[in-house]
Amino acid sequence: MALKRFRCIKPEIRVLGVDDGIFVPHTKSKVNVIGVVYRGGYWLDGVMRTEVIVDGMDATEKIASMIKKSPHYNQLRVVVLDGITFAGFNMVDINELFKRIDLPVIAVTREKPDLVQIKKALENLPERERRWNAIESAGKIIKVQTRNTEEAVYMQIAGVSQKDAEKILRNTSTRSNIPEALRVAHIIASGLARSEEKI
Amino acid sequence: MALKRFRCIKPEIRVLGVDDGIFVPHTKSKVNVIGVVYRGGYWLDGVMRTEVIVDGMDATEKIASMIKKSPHYNQLRVVVLDGITFAGFNMVDINELFKRIDLPVIAVTREKPDLVQIKKALENLPERERRWNAIESAGKIIKVQTRNTEEAVYMQIAGVSQKDAEKILRNTSTRSNIPEALRVAHIIASGLARSEEKI
Repeated sequence: MALKRFRCIKPEIRVLGVDDGIFVPHTKSKVNVIGVVYRGGYWLDGVMRTEVIVDGMDATEKIASMIKKSPHYNQLRVVVLDGITFAGFNMVDINELFKRIDLPVIAVTREKPDLVQIKKALENLPERERRWNAIESAGKIIKVQTRNTEEAVYMQIAGVSQKDAEKILRNTSTRSNIPEALRVAHIIASGLARSEEKI
Repeated sequence: MALKRFRCIKPEIRVLGVDDGIFVPHTKSKVNVIGVVYRGGYWLDGVMRTEVIVDGMDATEKIASMIKKSPHYNQLRVVVLDGITFAGFNMVDINELFKRIDLPVIAVTREKPDLVQIKKALENLPERERRWNAIESAGKIIKVQTRNTEEAVYMQIAGVSQKDAEKILRNTSTRSNIPEALRVAHIIASGLARSEEKI
């Protein structure tokens, strides 16, 4: 599929930030995944939610379905994920996600992903090749300076040029060095997880 | 208890907005209540959650307990509620809440509460006198113009002067005619309710 080109990145571009909640590793339980719609880096417009299995294989499908069913879907221009591993090693295949939702995907992490460590961890899991493929197909890890005063972050991208992705991250990282939609998705997902065990 | 006086309302005053989710009326089920911490009208700082019973009597206690247990409690300066009725007719006694949390409480509604209608609805519920007392003790309904370009809103207050409460509402209503913390609490509570029936 062709890259999505942005003639200009509007200040109020609708961004979906997606992050998961806290969970007990190596269990068969499900984990909340929260999507937060922001207008650029300033205004929260909507919230959505799905669940994925710890160390499962359903993250790509569940996140795609959450987005496509949302009333905000038609407004969205880009999706920003908290990395490509959800709920342990439930990998998001960002190229597959891009195909399913027809929106550019940017996976952002504050630390550079340690591929050696991840490969080692995958050895104990079923379908490790499929998981590793998701990591390899996510493409190169690109360092981005989103704010002058803070640490750089790292991104992997699908459906968008490096230049456009960098601009999107810079424009929407208003409060910290990651897009506001992603910062807030993290706060909501972890706030809900703390409040009550059963969620 | 004495009113909380504000020497000045700081632009980044920590406000907690509290709203409930969607629910099926007249059931014995529980409803999510979401609390959202904002710095003034701009930045989301935290999220908390509790549950109250539809048409129950536990809203005051549950909201007080949610706030006091939160890691944000010491930062908070004021609590803004979406009116005083939660989950149907589960009344928040705002004076009692003020006493328990030692923070000013402002109950805000977009429409003027229709006390005749509410009194009639209470006739079919147990403990209607206690519910009605919570309404009467919330004191007079004060009209406030939070933004020049939009409709006025209505407030009832506990633990704060009318002048300070008006200033707080004006300073924190950045995106709409209600405080941003309350607007976002509504979006989160209804977004979660829509996403999955079991929450």
